[in-house]
Amino acid sequence: MPLLKSWINSANDPEGSFPLNNLPYGVFSTEGTEPRCGTAIGTMILDLAALEEEGILAAAEDPVLDVPFWNDFMELGPEVWAAYRTKLQALLAEGTGMDVRAALEPHLVPAAQADLHLPFLVSEYTDFYAGRHHAENVGTMFRGAENALPPNWLSIPIGYNGRASSIVVSGTPVRRPWGQIKAPDETLPRFAPSARFDIELELGAVVGQASDDPMTVAEADAMIFGYVLLNDWSARDIQAWEYQPLGPFQAKATATTISPWIVTRAALEPFRIATPERERPLLPYLAEPGPMLYDIDLAVTLAPEGQTATTIARTNYSEMYYSAAQQLAHHTISGCPMNVGDLLGSGTISGPTRDSRGSLLELSWGGKEPLTLAGGASRSFIEDGDTLTLSGAAHGDGYRIGFGDCTGQLIPAHADIYGR
Amino acid sequence: MPLLKSWINSANDPEGSFPLNNLPYGVFSTEGTEPRCGTAIGTMILDLAALEEEGILAAAEDPVLDVPFWNDFMELGPEVWAAYRTKLQALLAEGTGMDVRAALEPHLVPAAQADLHLPFLVSEYTDFYAGRHHAENVGTMFRGAENALPPNWLSIPIGYNGRASSIVVSGTPVRRPWGQIKAPDETLPRFAPSARFDIELELGAVVGQASDDPMTVAEADAMIFGYVLLNDWSARDIQAWEYQPLGPFQAKATATTISPWIVTRAALEPFRIATPERERPLLPYLAEPGPMLYDIDLAVTLAPEGQTATTIARTNYSEMYYSAAQQLAHHTISGCPMNVGDLLGSGTISGPTRDSRGSLLELSWGGKEPLTLAGGASRSFIEDGDTLTLSGAAHGDGYRIGFGDCTGQLIPAHADIYGR
Repeated sequence: MPLLKSWINSANDPEGSFPLNNLPYGVFSTEGTEPRCGTAIGTMILDLAALEEEGILAAAEDPVLDVPFWNDFMELGPEVWAAYRTKLQALLAEGTGMDVRAALEPHLVPAAQADLHLPFLVSEYTDFYAGRHHAENVGTMFRGAENALPPNWLSIPIGYNGRASSIVVSGTPVRRPWGQIKAPDETLPRFAPSARFDIELELGAVVGQASDDPMTVAEADAMIFGYVLLNDWSARDIQAWEYQPLGPFQAKATATTISPWIVTRAALEPFRIATPERERPLLPYLAEPGPMLYDIDLAVTLAPEGQTATTIARTNYSEMYYSAAQQLAHHTISGCPMNVGDLLGSGTISGPTRDSRGSLLELSWGGKEPLTLAGGASRSFIEDGDTLTLSGAAHGDGYRIGFGDCTGQLIPAHADIYGR
Repeated sequence: MPLLKSWINSANDPEGSFPLNNLPYGVFSTEGTEPRCGTAIGTMILDLAALEEEGILAAAEDPVLDVPFWNDFMELGPEVWAAYRTKLQALLAEGTGMDVRAALEPHLVPAAQADLHLPFLVSEYTDFYAGRHHAENVGTMFRGAENALPPNWLSIPIGYNGRASSIVVSGTPVRRPWGQIKAPDETLPRFAPSARFDIELELGAVVGQASDDPMTVAEADAMIFGYVLLNDWSARDIQAWEYQPLGPFQAKATATTISPWIVTRAALEPFRIATPERERPLLPYLAEPGPMLYDIDLAVTLAPEGQTATTIARTNYSEMYYSAAQQLAHHTISGCPMNVGDLLGSGTISGPTRDSRGSLLELSWGGKEPLTLAGGASRSFIEDGDTLTLSGAAHGDGYRIGFGDCTGQLIPAHADIYGR
């Protein structure tokens, strides 16, 4: 698919993130206004709540976009999602009449003047462990090379429930957590700030429909509204001591940052790509009806406070072993009800090479091989003041489907956890 | 504390569950009416939404009880909880004037004519693993006697995030789930209905206040609104294959049943009892300012379809090693935000003897020692049609603080998971 040209010039920049082909959904506000639904087009944000109010473009009879979340819109279902997108693209396409442009122009806000908020109410959050390179790397460090990949890994898209209350939007500072820590040479745990605080580069799938029954992979795919970048901040030292036998808990509960724009499944359709060949055949309930991953380039940068950023990893979403649709299908097989606004983290997306690893744990190999940054500083884990930024884009013919940044700065731990 | 006498005679029955000392909070409806907030008193339910509407008893300026959940009331905070309870007890106490009785009587509904609903909107659900006998029993079966208690168990109230969408109210049928199952002698997993479906006898703590910061155990205790009985239905065969390395997932996602009445912390105050002596000193952030458990007798019955029930276990909440307040304090230490309506499962409450074990896995020792029921049938795990019922009560001087039943019948698995 080529670039779809818009009468908004900045949307036609081949290096831009938000061409007419993209139209991601977010929640924005400007000084003195309430957060409401909008879409990114070029360097502008189009106020979709205003279009709804003025009767220019509505998704349903009752308003659903004058609220600070996309959940009500998602509930309307895939047919409405498709019809709305088609009409929105027509309004913004090159060749649209001057009367329409004149009606829309008052509702275009420069993105630089807007604040972005969480784009949806997160119902529940599930994090997966579905990248093979990551699972093998971490498994080797935590359990030794012989036990790197757990016996069930090639059969199950392994997931665990995370904490929805800890999801924050890009730009929110993240405070270094306290927790129970026990080094291998210590006999008892200490209560201390985490000294091995880390990121996990992931993609988040936003569930846009509810279900009470088991879903096939095809049905699950149709329930996915779109995708965001996701940084599952992780305290490795807390995790190592707490995670057996029931999994990560407080190590993953400080914050998980997501990018502010939901890139729709529709916008990503041209970039579908198949999951890798199966080393072990999957059970039929996990069979995919077609390509379920996407060719999305991903990168991570680290900037020490007041210094320039260094790219510390580049990888691609197609490195995953299981797709979001497979993860969602697996999530439903026990009869577990899924709801609009559920968020599924892909699991850390690492590639096969050292510079394609999606966490500092892997990049510095557990701290044994520190990274050297552009300014000469070295890093094993995140230092106070560091800003970590994920970015991602699918590359089309003369255009990019960008995700917008997913960024957060680590601020120091409380000196006294109860005195704050 | 002695029985507080009420002018409602059935509330003064020393064998009843709902004396004036109790006043648990629930959501009820009668034929043709909408679910709303009420309290149980003797064999009746008092319509608290009607009292609010008529200006007889209100918690705040705006109505909070005309909705099918207690969340809005909980948000008002502990001072309002206490003031409301005091006024409610006064209205129902022996000696209350005839005019008050006349005003209340139209709003008393026989409990037998009412349907009970989930008493609150479950925000997020966390399940703990804080009963020592259970941890040792299960650990022995899953990992061998040498590794029964994980190294961190005596330091951390171990918990994992569960699935809030799977919480159902007592009486809701539970369908046997499908899942990936691999017996020890099989090389690859099968996709099949669970053959080892089980219960877990737990108490659930209802979080009634939000927090963004780490809380002390005393602060955490003050945030707890009340307690419910909780049955964490568990598919042991699915769990055994999936739970390493990131914990239980689909094995625990089919359903978790709670009793319909929130027994308030205030009603349980006279029954406080201390956690057991510590084998290993706890880190100071887990120190308790006073007794944080409660002396609550608990029982489990199993009734095959159409047959009488057999009591299969009797235990007490005081068997726990960690209290709900300690669990909640631990939950907050990483900065994890807690919200009104969060639900914390205690973990399975097993006592030291065989007949005090809170799961069939333990009662039948992994199926090796089946139970014999009153009618002569035997059980290792739950059979289709079986009804499992948890009950609980604190025993005061001439009265009981009952929880109401927490019951559910297991219905057969779908024959074809996608055809239903």
